[in-house]
Amino acid sequence: MSLRARETILAAETIVGYDTYIELIQDLLAGKQVVSTGMMQEIDRCKAAVEIAMTGKRVAVISSGDPGIYGMAGLVLELAAQYPADVRPQVTVIPGISAVGAAAAALGAPLMHDFAVISLSDLLTPWDVIKKRAEMAGVGDFVVAIYNPKSSKRITQIEEVREILLKHRSPATPVGIVGHATRAGEQVVISDLASFTKEYIDMFSLVIVGNSHTYVQDGRMVTPRGYKL
Amino acid sequence: MSLRARETILAAETIVGYDTYIELIQDLLAGKQVVSTGMMQEIDRCKAAVEIAMTGKRVAVISSGDPGIYGMAGLVLELAAQYPADVRPQVTVIPGISAVGAAAAALGAPLMHDFAVISLSDLLTPWDVIKKRAEMAGVGDFVVAIYNPKSSKRITQIEEVREILLKHRSPATPVGIVGHATRAGEQVVISDLASFTKEYIDMFSLVIVGNSHTYVQDGRMVTPRGYKL
Repeated sequence: MSLRARETILAAETIVGYDTYIELIQDLLAGKQVVSTGMMQEIDRCKAAVEIAMTGKRVAVISSGDPGIYGMAGLVLELAAQYPADVRPQVTVIPGISAVGAAAAALGAPLMHDFAVISLSDLLTPWDVIKKRAEMAGVGDFVVAIYNPKSSKRITQIEEVREILLKHRSPATPVGIVGHATRAGEQVVISDLASFTKEYIDMFSLVIVGNSHTYVQDGRMVTPRGYKL
Repeated sequence: MSLRARETILAAETIVGYDTYIELIQDLLAGKQVVSTGMMQEIDRCKAAVEIAMTGKRVAVISSGDPGIYGMAGLVLELAAQYPADVRPQVTVIPGISAVGAAAAALGAPLMHDFAVISLSDLLTPWDVIKKRAEMAGVGDFVVAIYNPKSSKRITQIEEVREILLKHRSPATPVGIVGHATRAGEQVVISDLASFTKEYIDMFSLVIVGNSHTYVQDGRMVTPRGYKL
């Protein structure tokens, strides 16, 4: 957590967030109103936050990682903007330690060069768009960071993305898989493009596929920046 | 700064970093050995850190933003790996609040969908590779975050990238420019693909080019996640 996020939560009167993340900050919630909901209730949750803020309360909506990277920031701004300027709440977005940055740190230094971040969640985005992005990331030799690689209902997309990237990159390309980055139970696995889908991957995993220069040494995944050493 | 980064700096005996960043953490340096160098001395600086660590000291190498995103993490790991396993220091990478995440938060929520991160610094990377990445990011309709958009010696690359993206995206596409994100003197400008290069941009700026759905409302740049509201 960032220092500023901690101060913001402590200074807030109402905290809104997904159950699991509310649990993680129990120690900061004394005396506060807490609105916690299940995973799929993002719109309800953020609507409640905006409405409570309009009663004059100081509300903090929490996301894991960075709220502006596939988090709640955009949704809160979109919902707040539905109200007239004179009543809508003032929204400040506080950057966090992103899941992709946390996963990278656990793996070594795979993001030391240009990278593309793609979510495989096709709930809100056509699968064709996602596939095209994977293709372009492959052609551009970006390091590719994959959010939401799998869920109980989505198990084949990660294989399709693997096949797309294999058209452009060696099967020996390092692939890192990090589960629950920075939390108790953090799991780190380094595999390769040929076989990484055999490893355990779920909706909380972050997958990072190296570019054509990424290598593994001493159990760390490194994408060289290009320094001549 | 993250809580963990602060604790790590306080627990270290030696702090190594670029002058400007050492200045920013003056209040944490009491009683510590400090190795501070100019901007272009990255290899010297990280070598010094590794060598001091091998004398048994606890060394913290500081980067702005996230040390694993164009920071010092990869370089430290590469240099440490040059020593035999029994003498090389143990390296832990501590994720931070990335410049791209901080810039996005200052702009609103432009990174709520898939994004590509590209550095225009061609010191260590062929310009053709960078151009190709910009092209692929354009074709894939990624939000594009640009690090090192300009320097005193590099002033045309940002124009070339603009032209590349204009082939794939409307001239009205929102573009955000953030200077010194999260620091005193933070500057936030929202412009568009047609005219953003007329704005002030230097080596400390972070530029974020929206995708085809990004819009500006109430002075905030938002890329919709796709929720139906």
